[in-house]
Amino acid sequence: MSLINGKEISEKIKDEIASRVREHTASGGKVPHLAAIIVGNDPASETYVSHKVKACERVGFRSTLVRIDENAEEQELLEKVSEINQDDDIDGLIVQLPLPGHMSEEKVIETISYKKDVDGFHPVNVGRMAIGLPAYLPATPFGIMELLRRSGIKTKGKHCVILGRSNIVGKPMSLLMSRKAEPGNCTVTICHSSTVDIPGTCRTADIIIAAMGTPGFLKADMVKEGAVVIDVGITRVKSDKTKSGWKLTGDVDFENVAPKCSHITPVPGGVGPMTIVSLLENTLMAAGRKIYT
Amino acid sequence: MSLINGKEISEKIKDEIASRVREHTASGGKVPHLAAIIVGNDPASETYVSHKVKACERVGFRSTLVRIDENAEEQELLEKVSEINQDDDIDGLIVQLPLPGHMSEEKVIETISYKKDVDGFHPVNVGRMAIGLPAYLPATPFGIMELLRRSGIKTKGKHCVILGRSNIVGKPMSLLMSRKAEPGNCTVTICHSSTVDIPGTCRTADIIIAAMGTPGFLKADMVKEGAVVIDVGITRVKSDKTKSGWKLTGDVDFENVAPKCSHITPVPGGVGPMTIVSLLENTLMAAGRKIYT
Repeated sequence: MSLINGKEISEKIKDEIASRVREHTASGGKVPHLAAIIVGNDPASETYVSHKVKACERVGFRSTLVRIDENAEEQELLEKVSEINQDDDIDGLIVQLPLPGHMSEEKVIETISYKKDVDGFHPVNVGRMAIGLPAYLPATPFGIMELLRRSGIKTKGKHCVILGRSNIVGKPMSLLMSRKAEPGNCTVTICHSSTVDIPGTCRTADIIIAAMGTPGFLKADMVKEGAVVIDVGITRVKSDKTKSGWKLTGDVDFENVAPKCSHITPVPGGVGPMTIVSLLENTLMAAGRKIYT
Repeated sequence: MSLINGKEISEKIKDEIASRVREHTASGGKVPHLAAIIVGNDPASETYVSHKVKACERVGFRSTLVRIDENAEEQELLEKVSEINQDDDIDGLIVQLPLPGHMSEEKVIETISYKKDVDGFHPVNVGRMAIGLPAYLPATPFGIMELLRRSGIKTKGKHCVILGRSNIVGKPMSLLMSRKAEPGNCTVTICHSSTVDIPGTCRTADIIIAAMGTPGFLKADMVKEGAVVIDVGITRVKSDKTKSGWKLTGDVDFENVAPKCSHITPVPGGVGPMTIVSLLENTLMAAGRKIYT
């Protein structure tokens, strides 16, 4: 069994990005610049955004954090987005989700210029990804593709079962894993809450991508010997074994599933650290005008 | 075995559309107006476009056919598209594909305003469909969803196997059949040229959507008793049984597969007639500003 060390791989990619940024700026290039908007003071959102800002610093990007009051009108947020869309110095823009209930996430996402949409949530980027054109890929699927590539896992002709059909993980994963590319070229089955026999379906899988958000859902008897298991779940559950009284738990019963796998990602330290790396890679591409001029 | 009569269903829908148009215009509403651009004189393209124009007449739409010379510059086509984008009287615009080799289909599709893109090929419509927002659906998948709905086929929890991963059929079908809706809510498996065991996979399917473009590919021993089979294939093959010396053949070995099915579409007269209906439905929605204002 080989552990896919997402923490280590993500640090290696950050080193690579940092070195590309140094080379680029040494030859007179512009420093990549990410803007993040946070609305309100949700502690989880604060944590996520501060990690993103720190990651920018780590690789030599410039970052700008814009704070908007929780009780502000939606219009204020939309105007700020439009202003950043126009700002030639800013290459990428993200708006931390979720937003307060009186603001439409759909409207905000569609207002972000697709050329700066480094979260890959804008319909233009989703659509271009779907039809196989270059696009900013959403963070988690992009990170998983990188994990597979850098772990040297051959995917062509394999049966990949995806648990979950969310817009940010399940659906894009099914498009990426079935497309004519490496990694890719899998026969893909997408399962969800209406699937009748998830255990039986999983037992036929060479690769399982678990993204249900149900802690410990994937049990050992649902996994065939030698399978590759990618655990996207990350739920905070009570624990009497940690100082904080909480621990992060994936969708996979890791202890019992791991011995059967050829490769498996742990939680934490698997898929999680890759998501910020995806954001950095998208921002670097945006700065270099690699996808859109 | 129940034959899904696409010809009959499509005529019924055209009647419904015609009656909605009559009501709408009787109360002072605007006549829906579709513009079609054809480049060059390819006989197949001529046939397709003339069918679309005739269908518009049949339901009371206005249609405008624009001809562009095969040797024209790409710029001439793009300018025509932009001009129609600006024309408030025209609700929907299609450009008949394929285009001559010196013109970029991607560029042309992206130049069409997504608000008039009644073929559903623009990345904005593909992306919105993917994330479950209202959008113009591509003709064939839209038509298949209508066939399933109107045939009263229950899809929830069923295993749907899709053969083919094209942008215009396989990929959108996988998104539509897996989404939380009726029809939909299927466990979806997408197969393609890299799939190792297509026969074995098909034998586990409750619903098979065959869109490989390989005449007679799906044999009786690949289909389980009681399955629903949708045949998207339409290939012209030589025949000594027809006056013309040709016949249209689907991806399904109909004669031997049909007796095992609960429902099956014939070729011709199954999926085919539904594609023009989808175009009419999208144009009607465009005229009514149902999706975009």
